Amino acid sequence: MTARIITIGREYGSGGRSIGEQAAKMLGYGFYDKVLIDLAAKKSGFAIDYIRNTEEQVTPNYLFNLAANGYYANSMFINDGLPASDNLFILQSKIIRELAEKGPCVIVGRCADYILRDRTDCLNVFIHAPLADRVARAVGEYGLPAEGAEKTVQRNDKIRSKHYQYYAGSKWGHIHRYHLTLNSSAFGCEAAAALIVETARKFG
Amino acid sequence: MTARIITIGREYGSGGRSIGEQAAKMLGYGFYDKVLIDLAAKKSGFAIDYIRNTEEQVTPNYLFNLAANGYYANSMFINDGLPASDNLFILQSKIIRELAEKGPCVIVGRCADYILRDRTDCLNVFIHAPLADRVARAVGEYGLPAEGAEKTVQRNDKIRSKHYQYYAGSKWGHIHRYHLTLNSSAFGCEAAAALIVETARKFG
Repeated sequence: MTARIITIGREYGSGGRSIGEQAAKMLGYGFYDKVLIDLAAKKSGFAIDYIRNTEEQVTPNYLFNLAANGYYANSMFINDGLPASDNLFILQSKIIRELAEKGPCVIVGRCADYILRDRTDCLNVFIHAPLADRVARAVGEYGLPAEGAEKTVQRNDKIRSKHYQYYAGSKWGHIHRYHLTLNSSAFGCEAAAALIVETARKFG
Repeated sequence: MTARIITIGREYGSGGRSIGEQAAKMLGYGFYDKVLIDLAAKKSGFAIDYIRNTEEQVTPNYLFNLAANGYYANSMFINDGLPASDNLFILQSKIIRELAEKGPCVIVGRCADYILRDRTDCLNVFIHAPLADRVARAVGEYGLPAEGAEKTVQRNDKIRSKHYQYYAGSKWGHIHRYHLTLNSSAFGCEAAAALIVETARKFG
């Protein structure tokens, strides 16, 4: 059996997005990352720039678990009483569920493991790496200015962690949330992608 | 390149020991688990029963990091001023270092990832599984009485966690301590072992 859906959580600078993309290519799967934002924008009428700015920048409040519980799954309801980030999450959750129905795919970020938690065909993966390696990748590959790069990497991780805690209600990067976690520095991105493919084939 | 040493940490009842043994067989590696206790006993003159009772049952105190820092690496020094559990850890640390020098092997438990942290040929793996599955394995395979089994499994995990925190000075089962973590329930023990072998071949 093969994992029909592969969700990938990743520390900033770990190469997780690239690894997911390579794994999708190897498997002949769809691949979804930033494209989700555009899909959400088109469906909601939200301005793309606004969504990009809002994305993954939430602060904790009493409105949690609202989006992923399926309540809004069959409507494109936008609630003016909710923070824009909550509305965005609701839209993204709906789109992620639609994509998972549509066909085999790799989905990076967006709490996809949590949103799709009731499915039995999801392989949930988390990619991490030592901080120094992630800073080096962020500077060398993502073009982050070297000065202050370490702080930026750590801040981005903190934003992701808070986002996950807020919407998924549990700890980002904790082993119990994932079927497989990999240190990308120990293998390199290509080998890590190959391992995910191998793991997907043994899943279930 | 292949990982010359594979260390395996594991939640109680996850099948980690069996997975490690299968991986060692597939790779033609040595396999070390309880045998370490006997080796330690023989070298130290400690009574085996005493060691079995002491093993992994430490409580935090001011004497931490003493064993694994190499201070005692070249002596079989037994310090009467130390708790027996600390002396045992010192002995096990020495034996683990000797085994790692001797030849390719899989070592289960015993903070081996921490003890061998300065080597560059170690693949560090952690095996986990949902609590219900671990309780079922503990009852069905290890012969634990069904009544109170869940509590026993949780208590054993707590003991391992405290032991790791005390000697390795960091959080047991945290992704940053391992190159690979696997949920054994998602794959089954045989496939998990095969994945470790595949991962070992891509390591470094």
